Amino acid sequence: MSDGSIFRGLSAFPLTPADADGVVDTQALAVMIDRLVVAGVDSIAVLGSTGTYAYLDRSQRSRALAAAVETVAGRIPLVAGIGAMRTSWVCELARDAERLGADGLLLAPVSYTPLTQDEVFTHFEAAAATTGLPVCIYNNPSTTHFSFSPELVARLSELANIAAIKMPLPVTGDFEREVGQLRSSCRDGMTIGYSGDSGAASALLAGADAWYSVVAGLLPAAALRLTRAATGGDRAAALAAHTAFEPFWSLFSVHGSLRVMYLIAEQLGLKAGSPPLPIQPLPGSVSAAVAEALHGLKD
Amino acid sequence: MSDGSIFRGLSAFPLTPADADGVVDTQALAVMIDRLVVAGVDSIAVLGSTGTYAYLDRSQRSRALAAAVETVAGRIPLVAGIGAMRTSWVCELARDAERLGADGLLLAPVSYTPLTQDEVFTHFEAAAATTGLPVCIYNNPSTTHFSFSPELVARLSELANIAAIKMPLPVTGDFEREVGQLRSSCRDGMTIGYSGDSGAASALLAGADAWYSVVAGLLPAAALRLTRAATGGDRAAALAAHTAFEPFWSLFSVHGSLRVMYLIAEQLGLKAGSPPLPIQPLPGSVSAAVAEALHGLKD
Repeated sequence: MSDGSIFRGLSAFPLTPADADGVVDTQALAVMIDRLVVAGVDSIAVLGSTGTYAYLDRSQRSRALAAAVETVAGRIPLVAGIGAMRTSWVCELARDAERLGADGLLLAPVSYTPLTQDEVFTHFEAAAATTGLPVCIYNNPSTTHFSFSPELVARLSELANIAAIKMPLPVTGDFEREVGQLRSSCRDGMTIGYSGDSGAASALLAGADAWYSVVAGLLPAAALRLTRAATGGDRAAALAAHTAFEPFWSLFSVHGSLRVMYLIAEQLGLKAGSPPLPIQPLPGSVSAAVAEALHGLKD
Repeated sequence: MSDGSIFRGLSAFPLTPADADGVVDTQALAVMIDRLVVAGVDSIAVLGSTGTYAYLDRSQRSRALAAAVETVAGRIPLVAGIGAMRTSWVCELARDAERLGADGLLLAPVSYTPLTQDEVFTHFEAAAATTGLPVCIYNNPSTTHFSFSPELVARLSELANIAAIKMPLPVTGDFEREVGQLRSSCRDGMTIGYSGDSGAASALLAGADAWYSVVAGLLPAAALRLTRAATGGDRAAALAAHTAFEPFWSLFSVHGSLRVMYLIAEQLGLKAGSPPLPIQPLPGSVSAAVAEALHGLKD
């Protein structure tokens, strides 16, 4: 049984710099990743939603991961997203990731035809059986359009390689209740983490093991302050760190976090290219708001 | 300006027979397509949702389309689905389809990151500018997770190559009102058709120009009876033809039309392979219900 030890603390999700045809700029990606390692994040997850995996083909995903492995050079755990429409593609991507040197995998049940609970179980079972790496369940209904039942999560947690789950923010807002339910229904050693940056402080204060963070992909120091305060139980410091990010949460909510991340990269002088069309760059008026938010954060 | 003349009447959506790795069985596809031409459908749309385009890579989509072009051999219009996540991929697929000999294109705004109305406009504008072929807007929120505003449809209808729209069944159930609104907001010559087989009789009786039909991909004779009765204004015959299909509408509603289509093919002795995993074949118990539905249809 894999344990979830690599899926703890602050997991940073970098963009994947690429050109208009989806060819990855591996040098720009290396620059982005090195600064995350230097900043001290607990792990890096390449080719997540923020890493635009859904817009990159298999060969470009391999190029991005190979560059990430070389840059991280074993200093911290490196996780790779392997979501794809076909089970056969996911298995290929899992093998690619293992061969290239990833430490763990992140699997979202991407769908076109709506999937049943049993279909998603079998999909994860096949992927997990393909690899010796620990797998994190990527539960993100707003992009995958699949909702995991509590029974499915419990059933998946019994598979040897399923080591972690990345949850969306609970609709009820009750993190303690949800974390407690997941701990009691999933096998021991599986970690429970959250995405949805605006809820990170609440999730970690409620005992979640990990924050799968968009902002940490570019603003690791401020995200680490939030993470360390919340996991250390310092509620006041965690909420102060959360509050410092509020202009970003607002921008994310209005424009989508991915589009805003490209502007943050630009403001920081990091080469990221443009979002993959049809996703469009935001207009200059939003750039000014991003600059102001960055000024307030003092990261 | 392209007109929508190829997007009229009964458009049949065949499966794309393929193996477990997504390699298309072009011979089996040719058999399936030839019987549709012989049955007298008005057009064929390969690589639609029923043709599992979302589960096939670019090279397999080309192989499928090339086989379809060869089989149809100009006897009726042949339309190809070109939906994909990236605008750059859609443009490649449009060029592939034109080069291979398709007569028209079907474009769904597939999404991962939720898209804005402007982003989808620009996506269609780029695709339409790439090709001289007429394009049908594939409006199917249940798989693409994008909802077209009436303003966006009207704006798209002004692009030279946008020739048709394929609508989902109206949530209000009021086809006449919706068809009337679309006719008044879209430019002349653009055709309005519907998918959602259970609503086809109502749509055509309300004046829609086309039925984009899943069942017609395997059961063209019964689908033609429904189409000819409804477009000819014979309400009683159209409703009788609709009623004969009711066991299929029920099965589609419970299991999803795609999964049921693989069982229909099996019952008809047509080679279709299995659905692309993670989508699973239905159990034998459903086969019996499909056999009974086929017996009742006498197609």
